[in-house]
Amino acid sequence: DFLHAIQEIRPAFGASTDDLERRRLNGMVDCGDRHKHLYERAMLLVEQVKVSRGSPLVTCLLEGPSGSGKTALAATIGIDSDFPFVKIISAETMIGLSESSKCAQIVKVFEDAYKSPLSIIILDDIERLLEYVGIGPRFSNLICQTLLVLLKRPPPKGKNMLVIGTTSEVDFLDSVGFCDAFSITYNVPTLKTWDARKVLQQLNVFAPDDIDAAAEALNDMPIKKLYVIVEMAAQGERGGGAEAIYSGKEKIGISHFFDCLGDVVRP
Amino acid sequence: DFLHAIQEIRPAFGASTDDLERRRLNGMVDCGDRHKHLYERAMLLVEQVKVSRGSPLVTCLLEGPSGSGKTALAATIGIDSDFPFVKIISAETMIGLSESSKCAQIVKVFEDAYKSPLSIIILDDIERLLEYVGIGPRFSNLICQTLLVLLKRPPPKGKNMLVIGTTSEVDFLDSVGFCDAFSITYNVPTLKTWDARKVLQQLNVFAPDDIDAAAEALNDMPIKKLYVIVEMAAQGERGGGAEAIYSGKEKIGISHFFDCLGDVVRP
Amino acid sequence: DFLHAIQEIRPAFGASTDDLERRRLNGMVDCGDRHKHLYERAMLLVEQVKVSRGSPLVTCLLEGPSGSGKTALAATIGIDSDFPFVKIISAETMIGLSESSKCAQIVKVFEDAYKSPLSIIILDDIERLLEYVGIGPRFSNLICQTLLVLLKRPPPKGKNMLVIGTTSEVDFLDSVGFCDAFSITYNVPTLKTWDARKVLQQLNVFAPDDIDAAAEALNDMPIKKLYVIVEMAAQGERGGGAEAIYSGKEKIGISHFFDCLGDVVRP
Amino acid sequence: DFLHAIQEIRPAFGASTDDLERRRLNGMVDCGDRHKHLYERAMLLVEQVKVSRGSPLVTCLLEGPSGSGKTALAATIGIDSDFPFVKIISAETMIGLSESSKCAQIVKVFEDAYKSPLSIIILDDIERLLEYVGIGPRFSNLICQTLLVLLKRPPPKGKNMLVIGTTSEVDFLDSVGFCDAFSITYNVPTLKTWDARKVLQQLNVFAPDDIDAAAEALNDMPIKKLYVIVEMAAQGERGGGAEAIYSGKEKIGISHFFDCLGDVVRP
Amino acid sequence: DFLHAIQEIRPAFGASTDDLERRRLNGMVDCGDRHKHLYERAMLLVEQVKVSRGSPLVTCLLEGPSGSGKTALAATIGIDSDFPFVKIISAETMIGLSESSKCAQIVKVFEDAYKSPLSIIILDDIERLLEYVGIGPRFSNLICQTLLVLLKRPPPKGKNMLVIGTTSEVDFLDSVGFCDAFSITYNVPTLKTWDARKVLQQLNVFAPDDIDAAAEALNDMPIKKLYVIVEMAAQGERGGGAEAIYSGKEKIGISHFFDCLGDVVRP
Amino acid sequence: DFLHAIQEIRPAFGASTDDLERRRLNGMVDCGDRHKHLYERAMLLVEQVKVSRGSPLVTCLLEGPSGSGKTALAATIGIDSDFPFVKIISAETMIGLSESSKCAQIVKVFEDAYKSPLSIIILDDIERLLEYVGIGPRFSNLICQTLLVLLKRPPPKGKNMLVIGTTSEVDFLDSVGFCDAFSITYNVPTLKTWDARKVLQQLNVFAPDDIDAAAEALNDMPIKKLYVIVEMAAQGERGGGAEAIYSGKEKIGISHFFDCLGDVVRP
Ligand SMILES: Nc1ncnc2c1ncn2[C@@H]1O[C@H](COP(=O)(O)OP(=O)(O)OP(=O)(O)O)[C@@H](O)[C@H]1O
Ligand SMILES: Nc1ncnc2c1ncn2[C@@H]1O[C@H](COP(=O)(O)OP(=O)(O)OP(=O)(O)O)[C@@H](O)[C@H]1O
Ligand SMILES: Nc1ncnc2c1ncn2[C@@H]1O[C@H](COP(=O)(O)OP(=O)(O)OP(=O)(O)O)[C@@H](O)[C@H]1O
Ligand SMILES: Nc1ncnc2c1ncn2[C@@H]1O[C@H](COP(=O)(O)OP(=O)(O)OP(=O)(O)O)[C@@H](O)[C@H]1O
Ligand SMILES: Nc1ncnc2c1ncn2[C@@H]1O[C@H](COP(=O)(O)OP(=O)(O)OP(=O)(O)O)[C@@H](O)[C@H]1O
Ligand SMILES: Nc1ncnc2c1ncn2[C@@H]1O[C@H](COP(=O)(O)OP(=O)(O)OP(=O)(O)O)[C@@H](O)[C@H]1O
Ligand SMILES: [Mg+2]
Ligand SMILES: [Mg+2]
Ligand SMILES: [Mg+2]
Ligand SMILES: [Mg+2]
Ligand SMILES: [Mg+2]
Ligand SMILES: [Mg+2]
Repeated sequence: DFLHAIQEIRPAFGASTDDLERRRLNGMVDCGDRHKHLYERAMLLVEQVKVSRGSPLVTCLLEGPSGSGKTALAATIGIDSDFPFVKIISAETMIGLSESSKCAQIVKVFEDAYKSPLSIIILDDIERLLEYVGIGPRFSNLICQTLLVLLKRPPPKGKNMLVIGTTSEVDFLDSVGFCDAFSITYNVPTLKTWDARKVLQQLNVFAPDDIDAAAEALNDMPIKKLYVIVEMAAQGERGGGAEAIYSGKEKIGISHFFDCLGDVVRP
Repeated sequence: DFLHAIQEIRPAFGASTDDLERRRLNGMVDCGDRHKHLYERAMLLVEQVKVSRGSPLVTCLLEGPSGSGKTALAATIGIDSDFPFVKIISAETMIGLSESSKCAQIVKVFEDAYKSPLSIIILDDIERLLEYVGIGPRFSNLICQTLLVLLKRPPPKGKNMLVIGTTSEVDFLDSVGFCDAFSITYNVPTLKTWDARKVLQQLNVFAPDDIDAAAEALNDMPIKKLYVIVEMAAQGERGGGAEAIYSGKEKIGISHFFDCLGDVVRP
Repeated sequence: DFLHAIQEIRPAFGASTDDLERRRLNGMVDCGDRHKHLYERAMLLVEQVKVSRGSPLVTCLLEGPSGSGKTALAATIGIDSDFPFVKIISAETMIGLSESSKCAQIVKVFEDAYKSPLSIIILDDIERLLEYVGIGPRFSNLICQTLLVLLKRPPPKGKNMLVIGTTSEVDFLDSVGFCDAFSITYNVPTLKTWDARKVLQQLNVFAPDDIDAAAEALNDMPIKKLYVIVEMAAQGERGGGAEAIYSGKEKIGISHFFDCLGDVVRP
Repeated sequence: DFLHAIQEIRPAFGASTDDLERRRLNGMVDCGDRHKHLYERAMLLVEQVKVSRGSPLVTCLLEGPSGSGKTALAATIGIDSDFPFVKIISAETMIGLSESSKCAQIVKVFEDAYKSPLSIIILDDIERLLEYVGIGPRFSNLICQTLLVLLKRPPPKGKNMLVIGTTSEVDFLDSVGFCDAFSITYNVPTLKTWDARKVLQQLNVFAPDDIDAAAEALNDMPIKKLYVIVEMAAQGERGGGAEAIYSGKEKIGISHFFDCLGDVVRP
Repeated sequence: DFLHAIQEIRPAFGASTDDLERRRLNGMVDCGDRHKHLYERAMLLVEQVKVSRGSPLVTCLLEGPSGSGKTALAATIGIDSDFPFVKIISAETMIGLSESSKCAQIVKVFEDAYKSPLSIIILDDIERLLEYVGIGPRFSNLICQTLLVLLKRPPPKGKNMLVIGTTSEVDFLDSVGFCDAFSITYNVPTLKTWDARKVLQQLNVFAPDDIDAAAEALNDMPIKKLYVIVEMAAQGERGGGAEAIYSGKEKIGISHFFDCLGDVVRP
Repeated sequence: DFLHAIQEIRPAFGASTDDLERRRLNGMVDCGDRHKHLYERAMLLVEQVKVSRGSPLVTCLLEGPSGSGKTALAATIGIDSDFPFVKIISAETMIGLSESSKCAQIVKVFEDAYKSPLSIIILDDIERLLEYVGIGPRFSNLICQTLLVLLKRPPPKGKNMLVIGTTSEVDFLDSVGFCDAFSITYNVPTLKTWDARKVLQQLNVFAPDDIDAAAEALNDMPIKKLYVIVEMAAQGERGGGAEAIYSGKEKIGISHFFDCLGDVVRP
């Protein structure tokens, strides 16, 4: 079944950089000091992997609320590492495959990486890779066991590897032993008021007087939700206003912005 | 199994507009301000998708009690959007298929939609798509995972998509992570007394003096139940009276109407 | 699997009227006012389906204790409707079939019915169709989902359909969403003392002086149990007495009757 | 699977009377008034089935503790009925078969019986037929559903059938709906002191003076255990004594008998 | 599946006596009065089976803590019986087989035994035959049902059989109905101080003055653990001392013995 | 399935010593008295197996927190034993195999070992071999049963075997009966302050004055975590410092070390 599954694997992923760039379509804006600190620490791990002799495998988990920017951060680290092998393993490219085919794909990426002296593998949205759902809970133990072994198995002699995982279900992952399996875990947080203000300033869609009020209302919001609300608000109350906003001709009406915010935030 | 399932897919759906029109056989009557507001908000999302550059995928969930008009509203938005690709994914057309065949069908609709610059996909009765039943609870995790990935995967460059889901089991959907997966969620409510009165006036089957009493009795009723009761009452106590009522020659007897209402509403 | 299952379907049911008549082998005796009222209401639904334009699908559930006469009532409505298509879907004819074969059979009956301008489908003993058992509880979710969709899917344009379900496990059906799925639900009750007296008078196997005592003892008994007890009692204490009783030559001994009643009613 | 299973069925059972006689190898001794009453009542049902016109199917469940004589009683009724078709359905002849093969076998016996004007089917040890085990609890729902339908489906016109079930797990059977499915249920009890005395007198292995003490000690014992203990005691303390006891030359030592009793009855 | 499984059966077991002798590699030492009494009682059952006419099948369960000597006792009874057919059914010879293959093997042994006028079958470690594990709990219901039927099914006319089961999970076996299924159950206990002293005297590896202290420390120990500890202690503190001990030249140091005991007994 | 699985087995493991050496890439440093005592006791078992006649199979479980050095210790014992057959059974070499293939592999290693007069088998990370996950909990009962039988089955005459198991989930193993199955269980502990100091002295990467503070902070740390933190700290705050540290030119900054420690230890 497994051998068969290996053959079922589709042609290799597209050029990996494209694959990574797609995870940060809007580019990366400055999200405040805490996000920056995370980036720096992660880049230190990249350095460590480059020179390590005793620890050929370093593993790092990025956890945090949905939409807080974990995948974008992981992709950025991958791009900035300049490692010869950087791949992202994501449920998106494995829709509809059987558990064993998914395992085979995952193993294949690791085997490919083992051939490179320096490699980064991003396990994106591990709960989705595990087909996790909170009721039951249910998940694929086959994939779970496969990842637990891969996170512990050292690459062959002379090859060093960094594995970055992302998840918004850290409690679940902990309960199936993943947190112990990663060498280190970082929390990727939502935006606080001052982080949100920084982002809004860069987006430049509010009148200067409205930015503080808007930022305050966005306190504790993940960056993804911030983008959704801003875009909704940019349409204006009757639609059609986006062009003017993005070209800078007009600014978003602050009260309409609060309306949109109310729609998105469920009570 | 999955590849095989893809081939098992039956010929493409019929012309989609027909498919949408079937969801509102009786046309759309005015159901009051709250329904109207929902329609307008949803049409704003349609506008947003048309012009968006940064958010190629917008997703919106319509939830509410059974028979409150969610599917009819979604179909209406699809029809009024004038998008080149509008399809409804419904359990009706997938009776008896295996989980993996259903997944393959669903994926196929998304793949087709990705070829269109602007598309709307309606996921009708998501709990039924998921084969959900409250005891257990049981549901198809395979379909669940497939939808969760599709609701997050952006369409290819240059293509924008709106996904509208409907459900009367919002608590279940929340517990398996769907509410987080949708950008925005709207509640489609039952009719209040004043909404029911508006509908009854348009149907014109009660004597003017009876409309207020009838509307009051129908408070908090979903529109579907309203139609059932009116039609039962229109038969008259001994049957055969419907013709006269619908042609306007006679009106529904208010006391017989209350009898029918009692039959339908279980204590 | 499903397509294969369709071919596995055995030749069409026998002439449907035979099939219906078998459900009321002993003919129909007058069981009192409450049963009569149910019959009349159900026949009004038959009328409604005949003339309806806006509601091509009407669905009605008959629930009540085991042996209270639900199947006999449904069969009688089917026979008295004079609709061109009347079929009963029952577990009896599907013994030993797989879940998917049963689904295929059920779907086939609906597809056949869709070809008739007016049709009645009786879903007899829905809990048995669902392979329900109280421990677990267990049941076939495949059949459950199939029925839930069929109970909601309107027939093609110009075709009207009445679906009558029967069940003695209404709480279970409610918990898997069937009660919401039916437009209307009627309770078929056991016999009260006066109903039982009416039935006994028609059977004419007791001495006139004994009928009241016998009827009182049968209070709250389903009609099926009443028939069992009467037949046991008719054998007499030493057997061989039935002939004389049914030919009217003798009457049932009331004290022997009470003995038999004690055997059947578990404490 | 089911059709295939039918072909897997082994050649028809041996001559059924042999099969029945094997269930009462030691013949039938008089077990006291309560057992006798049960036999008489059951034979009345046999009479009823012979002459019934309105109830072609009569079903009767014998329940009671393990080893109380249910199977032997059912076999005796079958033999004494003189019906042309009497068959026992037992797990013994279906060891190792799949659930669906067992169902096919069971259905086959019913189909064969339907061809006979008068038939008796014994469902022996229903919990074993259902592959029941108390932990879980687990059992075969496939076989369960099959039996539930067969216990309700009337034989064809002109054919009358008596079904006798036996079980020592009546609470379980009740919880899966079998008790409702049988027309009538009888309890087959353990032996009381006076019943045991009657049996011991017939066996004639105790000295007259010891019989009362022995019978008292056997109060509330199923007949099967009584036989086991008597046979153990008949070996004597050092073995080899059985011949003398059974030939009547010696009697069982009462104190050795109490020793054996203590071994068998777990505290 | 089952028929297929039968063919999968490997060639018949090796000569059965070898198989039995392997279960008591170290011979049988005198373990005290309680073990002796058990042996005698079991040999009485052997006698009973030899001469029985009314009870062709006698079944006996040996239960007790892990390592208390149940298998060795069963094997000894088998050897001492001098029956023409004595076989042990053990999980050891069925590693990796499917449930149905195991059933087929078990049934095969019974069928073979039925051909012998006198036979003994040892069901060794029934919980392991049932693939039991305490979490869940899980076990094979297929094998469970097979054994339950086999423990009740009498051999053919003229053949007598003794079945001896062993288990250290008597509570589990009770909960799945095995204790009721065996005619009789004996407890095989751990060693008490005086039993242990007897065993140590026979082993002759302690100085006479140390035997009492050692025996006291071994109170309530199963014989298997006693052997493990003695052998560890015989190595001496620095290894290499075993030769001298077993040849009788030296004795085990009592304080080193207590050290070893501490290692084995988990607090 | 199982026979098939055997053929699926890949070519025999590489030279076993390589396999063992990979488990202690960094060599073995002195971890303090408690680790040393464990090593000595285990080597005594090796001696015992060499000379034993009565106990051909000795089994020993090493349990302790994740990363405490269990596998390295087991590998070292295997290497130092000088036995002709030493193999490690690990989930690493069985990724993606089915349960039955894994069983077949495991059995194969035991069968191979049975051919050698003296053998050691290391069952590494038994919970991973069992595919254990804490939620549920779930695990492979097939593999579990296989191991339970293998841990009890004596090798053929004249062959002696030592089985060493490792686990960090001793409570789980206990609950499925593994602790009873092993003759003896040793706990491999984390490092206490004085153990950590010993290790740090050997690594020689801290200034002499900082060693005490560092060791104190590492109290109760498994050796694996100690290595991770030291290596992170060796990069220095801005990266690139590792070379200088390992060559001895510089020492790790103690405050940067505390920073790294904080990252790794989740609150
Ligand atoms: N620093 C940033 N600058 C600009 N856009 C960003 C930044 N970080 C994240 N985004 C954008 O925010 C959105 C959400 O980010 P991302 O997908 O990385 O979040 P996530 O934490 O992985 O979410 P999820 O939990 O859903 O997987 C994406 O569209 C991404 O491009
Ligand atoms: N505005 C409206 N005007 C007229 N008819 C309507 C309107 N809204 C809904 N209906 C009718 O009411 C019935 C129920 O509507 P619909 O199926 O959309 O409800 P729903 O909320 O999707 O129900 P369910 O929860 O069962 O899926 C349909 O027959 C539909 O045609
Ligand atoms: N009105 C009636 N007159 C005469 N016999 C009747 C009448 N109603 C029911 N019976 C008879 O009573 C018996 C039980 O009726 P029926 O099978 O319809 O009950 P039910 O409620 O469907 O039972 P179940 O719950 O077991 O399906 C049948 O033999 C039927 O013929
Ligand atoms: N009246 C009787 N006279 C002589 N022997 C009897 C009598 N009744 C039962 N036996 C014997 O007692 C034993 C147990 O009887 P039987 O198997 O009928 O009990 P049971 O209730 O069916 O047990 P189980 O619950 O195990 O199926 C059998 O050997 C049977 O032959
Ligand atoms: N009377 C005895 N004399 C000598 N050795 C014995 C005796 N009884 C048992 N043994 C030995 O003790 C060990 C354990 O005995 P045995 O395997 O029979 O125990 P058990 O109760 O079957 O254990 P388990 O519960 O693990 O199956 C065996 O090595 C056996 O040879
Ligand atoms: N005495 C030692 N000297 C040097 N390094 C050691 C020593 N013991 C263990 N290590 C190293 O520490 C790391 C963890 O050790 P090991 O894998 O044996 O731990 P473990 O207890 O088996 O962990 P796990 O629970 O994750 O299986 C390995 O890199 C190993 O090489
Ligand atoms: Mg992400
Ligand atoms: Mg809808
Ligand atoms: Mg019925
Ligand atoms: Mg019986
Ligand atoms: Mg044993
Ligand atoms: Mg390890």
